[in-house]
Formats: sequence, C-alpha cells, structure tokens
Amino acid sequence: MIKRNLALPAFIATALALGAGAVSAEVVNNNITEAEVKAAQEAWGQALIQISDRYAADGIDKAREKAEQVLDAAYGYGQGAVLFKPTLASGEQTFRIAREGALAYFVGHDESYPDDSGFALKGWKSYSFENAAVYINGDLALTTGHVRLTDADGQETIVDKSWAFKKDEQGALRIVLHHSSLPYAPGY
Amino acid sequence: MIKRNLALPAFIATALALGAGAVSAEVVNNNITEAEVKAAQEAWGQALIQISDRYAADGIDKAREKAEQVLDAAYGYGQGAVLFKPTLASGEQTFRIAREGALAYFVGHDESYPDDSGFALKGWKSYSFENAAVYINGDLALTTGHVRLTDADGQETIVDKSWAFKKDEQGALRIVLHHSSLPYAPGY
Amino acid sequence: MIKRNLALPAFIATALALGAGAVSAEVVNNNITEAEVKAAQEAWGQALIQISDRYAADGIDKAREKAEQVLDAAYGYGQGAVLFKPTLASGEQTFRIAREGALAYFVGHDESYPDDSGFALKGWKSYSFENAAVYINGDLALTTGHVRLTDADGQETIVDKSWAFKKDEQGALRIVLHHSSLPYAPGY
Amino acid sequence: MIKRNLALPAFIATALALGAGAVSAEVVNNNITEAEVKAAQEAWGQALIQISDRYAADGIDKAREKAEQVLDAAYGYGQGAVLFKPTLASGEQTFRIAREGALAYFVGHDESYPDDSGFALKGWKSYSFENAAVYINGDLALTTGHVRLTDADGQETIVDKSWAFKKDEQGALRIVLHHSSLPYAPGY
Repeated sequence: MIKRNLALPAFIATALALGAGAVSAEVVNNNITEAEVKAAQEAWGQALIQISDRYAADGIDKAREKAEQVLDAAYGYGQGAVLFKPTLASGEQTFRIAREGALAYFVGHDESYPDDSGFALKGWKSYSFENAAVYINGDLALTTGHVRLTDADGQETIVDKSWAFKKDEQGALRIVLHHSSLPYAPGY
Repeated sequence: MIKRNLALPAFIATALALGAGAVSAEVVNNNITEAEVKAAQEAWGQALIQISDRYAADGIDKAREKAEQVLDAAYGYGQGAVLFKPTLASGEQTFRIAREGALAYFVGHDESYPDDSGFALKGWKSYSFENAAVYINGDLALTTGHVRLTDADGQETIVDKSWAFKKDEQGALRIVLHHSSLPYAPGY
Repeated sequence: MIKRNLALPAFIATALALGAGAVSAEVVNNNITEAEVKAAQEAWGQALIQISDRYAADGIDKAREKAEQVLDAAYGYGQGAVLFKPTLASGEQTFRIAREGALAYFVGHDESYPDDSGFALKGWKSYSFENAAVYINGDLALTTGHVRLTDADGQETIVDKSWAFKKDEQGALRIVLHHSSLPYAPGY
Repeated sequence: MIKRNLALPAFIATALALGAGAVSAEVVNNNITEAEVKAAQEAWGQALIQISDRYAADGIDKAREKAEQVLDAAYGYGQGAVLFKPTLASGEQTFRIAREGALAYFVGHDESYPDDSGFALKGWKSYSFENAAVYINGDLALTTGHVRLTDADGQETIVDKSWAFKKDEQGALRIVLHHSSLPYAPGY
C-alpha cells in the first residue's frame, strides 16, 4: 500500500531491515551556560589577586607578565576590539578598546597612560561578585551586578560592573565588554 | 588606604554598608536545548498522525484546517521563508519556501500542485525518530537522522531527515529548515 | 556513464530537464546591523527628550504615560529581566531589573524609590552619542561610548554608557543591558 | 543647575572639556553574510573538481591528500560532529558524523565503507548551485537548493542539497550540516 500511495521503491525494505542500529546522537553545543559564566567571573577575581601577589613578591615586570597572560586568556583582544570601560579611567582614555590600554590600566608604568596607577597592583586579597541579572544569548552572556574587592588592610571596594562573555571555539570564555563604575553617591 | 590609592570618595562606605542585599540573579536564557528539540520532533510526529486521523474521520476540509494549525504553530512561515524540501516533492516544485506549497504537500487537493497527493493524509498511525547528531547554536538547533512512520497496515516508511529549529521569543520551536529524502538505494 | 558510476536511475533525466527555473533565493536574515544599532541609539535620545517635553507641557501623568510607551517599545522588560544600571541609582536600588524600577528611575514620583527624582524629567533638549566600539554577535549588539545630554540651560551632561540591543522577531531593537555611569574624576 | 538636579560633581566640567576626541567606533562583527555563504558554496564545488582532477592526474593517494585538506578546511569535523547525509550513502552508513566516514565517501578505497566508490573521483568538471532560500542566524547560515555537477562526458547530475555553514573565529566558513539527496521521481 505504501508503494502504491507513496511510490516507494522496493529498496526501502532493505533500508528498513538495516535500520540505523543503536547509534546514539552526538551533540555539538556551542552555547554558553550560567555555570560557565560564574566560573569565568571567579577566574577573573583570582587573576586580579594573582597579579597583586606577583607584584608584591616579584615586582612590576613579573606582574606585567602575569597581566599579559590574563589579558590574552580572559579577554577578547586577540579577536578584535573589547568594549572596556575601567572603573578609574576617564577623559580621552576612558575606553580601552585595544590591549595596550587594558594592560596600562591593570599594571600602570606606561607613560602613554599617565593617569593609570595600576589597578591590579593595589594589594587585592579577596574577591566576590553578586550578579543582579544574567542574560544568555547563544555563545554570549551578559552580567550586571556588584563586585567586591578587599585589600591587604581589609578595606573593601565595591563597584557596579557589567560584563559580556563570549565563548570561543575551544570552549573558553572571553570578556568582550567590561563596564565598571564606582557606585553613584546620592547625597554627594 | 583605598582612598589614597584609588581615590575612592567617602560615599563608598555607605554603599558598602548597604550592600546588595540577598538579591539572587535573575536569568534570561534565549538558548535552545536538546530536550526542547526532542519535544518538537515528537510533536511533529504527533501532528502528522492527527492530520491523518482527522482526514479519516472528518474529511479533507477538517484535515486541511488541522494542517494549517500545524504549519502556523510548528513552522516559521509566519516569519519568512522556510527551507522545506519535502520527501516526495520534485522538479520545479521541489522546494516549498512559502506556506501554500507546504500546505499543498501535506494535504494535497490543490490544483497548483498537481503532483501532491497529500503526504499527511496517508493514514499514519505511529512515529519515531532517531537523531544521528544534533548541533546546537544559540536559539537554533540542527538535527539529522532517520524518521520512521507506520501506517494503518503496519507498513513502515523510513526517511533521512534534517531539521533546523528556531526558538522564538515565546519559547516555542519553529521549523526553519526541513530536508527529507528517501533512502538511497545502492543496488539500484 | 553517470548511471554506471553513480547508480543514478533514469528519472534523473526528467529532473534535469525540469531544472529549477529562474527562482531566485529568498533570504531570511535575523542578524542585527550597525545601522540598526545607531538608529536605536538615536531613538533612545529622542524618546528621552520627548518625555522631558511632555512633562514640561502636560505634567507627570502624561510624562509617565510616554515613559511607559518608551519602556515597552525600547526595552526588553516584556521578555524578562533587563540588566539596567542607571546613572544615578545606588545602594540596594542600583540595578533596575524589572520594569517598575526603570519607570521610577525615568519619571520618579514613586514612593518605593525615594531617591529617584526622575531622570527623564530634567528638561533635556538635545542628545548625541559617540560609540567607542560596537560588538555585533547574531541578533545582539553591544556598544560602549559617551552619551551627551543638554538641558534647557545649555548645560551638558556626559555619561559613560554601555548598551546591549537585542533584535526581536518583528525587527525591532530592544535594550537588554544598559549600564550608565558618571565619568570618573581622577583628581578627586 | 545640572549640579543641583543631578548631583553631578564639578569634575564633570573637565570631562566635558576633554570630550572623546575624534575617535571613531571600532566594530567587531561575528555575523555571517549571504556573500560569504555563496563564496563557500562556490569553493565547495571548486574543491570537488580539484579532487577529481588530482585523481585523474596523480591517482588515489594524491586525491585523498587533497580531500583531507578540503575536509579540514571546509567542514567542521575538527570542532565536533558534522551532520552529513551524503547523496549516495545508505543503510547503517547513511550519516557520516565523523571525519573518516566523510573521507571514505569522497574518495572511497576504505574497506570499512564497502559501498563507497568515491564521489569526488567521478571526473567532475563543472559545478553550479541555485539556492531556493537562505536563512541567516548569527554566525550560522542555512541554504537549500539545487546543485548541478557535470562530468567529463558532459552529463549533468542534479541533487537537492541543504547546508549549514558556521563562521569560525578566523572568519572561515565551515560546513556543519550537509544533506544531499537525489531528486524524487514522481512517476517512478
């Protein structure tokens, strides 16, 4: 009856007999997950502390070396522009779209960026983040929330921070947007 | 010390004291999942059987009505072209990019499509699918594998089928590519 | 010869004769473009000025009505959380993830948000933006740059602003992330 | 007045004076375009002809070498499963999810795939494609249409073909879905 209706040739019987075996589906999934985002945020904080530690122990050259590793591993500068607005950058150097501007921000010691004192050199000892919301869209995830950093004296700095993470082909997450700002002071 | 190094104004103390409370992150996730894809494949099979049942019970007008509902709910014709290559379509009418061509394929009775006998009217009673692989990319998922359909006489038809499903804003999955073909006959 | 090599049945001749006609490809494109992003940024500024004008001309109720239209058309609150960190929001109300918090920020007059004086009510007369960089990924685009607003007295306010725009199924762009902050004051 | 209304500190004046200079926006765009898709389709056809030519001139080893280059450059096997349903594959070997199955299909000479006679070895001389529709979604594009191949005797083979191309980080397009089938024969 199928043959009459659907004009299926006789070879279908063979295909039916063969079936597709017990092959289970292989799955490729390029999407980013909330768990990956949290791990990347945690790694960012740990990296900042590592740069601080390296600076304290070994000086600026080793700290810069570490910062370059962090930038290359955790940011998307190798792929193109990064939308980076650091907490303490301002004026014509507010946005650090290229890698050299980001490096100057983190470790200073660059005469092209005279206002940069090296944010990652400030003796950071611990880190925590609190996402207000997470937005996941394909291989890109956005977060906005508070980040807290504590220094060697136990003083805490809080910033308002938005990030966009892009998952690359190797499964690593890279920061492609990073907007950080000091809390607004209403009574100021 | 933070004040000296980072030039943080005194109002930070207030912000620190306030904290962000116990707000947990809200998550928006636009991505498609493998489970959603399987559910959509299951639903496609059930819909095909429903059109067959409707046709047997109530005739072509009710069957067409049901088919239109299925097309509008499960395919992306409302959003634009659908890349549909039905199993038994050929020649200049091989590709059913617009809704009317898809409707003709499923329920026939359209003089503009004289070769269409109505694929969904063929008394289908059961359905199963076997994905060889699934590829997930953002809100779009691709599948390729075997689909089996059994009619009232117990005869099984097997087809090679690829689908692309797009997850819409309401969370529903829509077919935007559907390439179906009879198995190749090597000894033919 | 094709038949011998490829085991193609005779019916191929028919298909070849039919060809596919002169059908040109229909294209569905869900991606966002830089031009669409710029238009959305322009529209945001115009909407802010319209709310200011409405407030001056007709008072708070009309201004709120306008602000609600803007929120519903230009932001993604209808689809879920929006990652909104307004310029002048702080403390526990820093992030306006839900629509009511965004409305309070723009037009104030909400006792649940006592610090909100209504950012859109401040007599804004003109608007410009300057993107430092734009990052386009599927139906989502990120921008970071300066935005300038001028009030009735000719005084200009500048903010550092990052946005994420999501293109919806109707082709409209919706803000899903909006982080705005006052410029950092290095000498402070 | 701004200071009164918005509580903007005096340093804003400095920022306003500095401005953002004449920096124009840098744009990162990860999206795939229709032009890139057409170029990839053209390249696929050229590669097929090259394998045929290599086989005729230098034998199977050189042809296989070329085919491996093509697979590695034009398909996504290096990143994971590819949803490949070749025109003339059937039974338990219908789907060539892994690279070795694809290689066997194109150049044969693999005892694990006894039905494969080597599709790329069949003396192909020219190539054309005709997309019925193209669907673009982020870095992924789908096509469905006819592909025509002509051999040394001038005989043309037509197939119905769907592809999904994924744009990688280096900007190269890779095939992640490839469903090819002989035209259905209505009178058969």
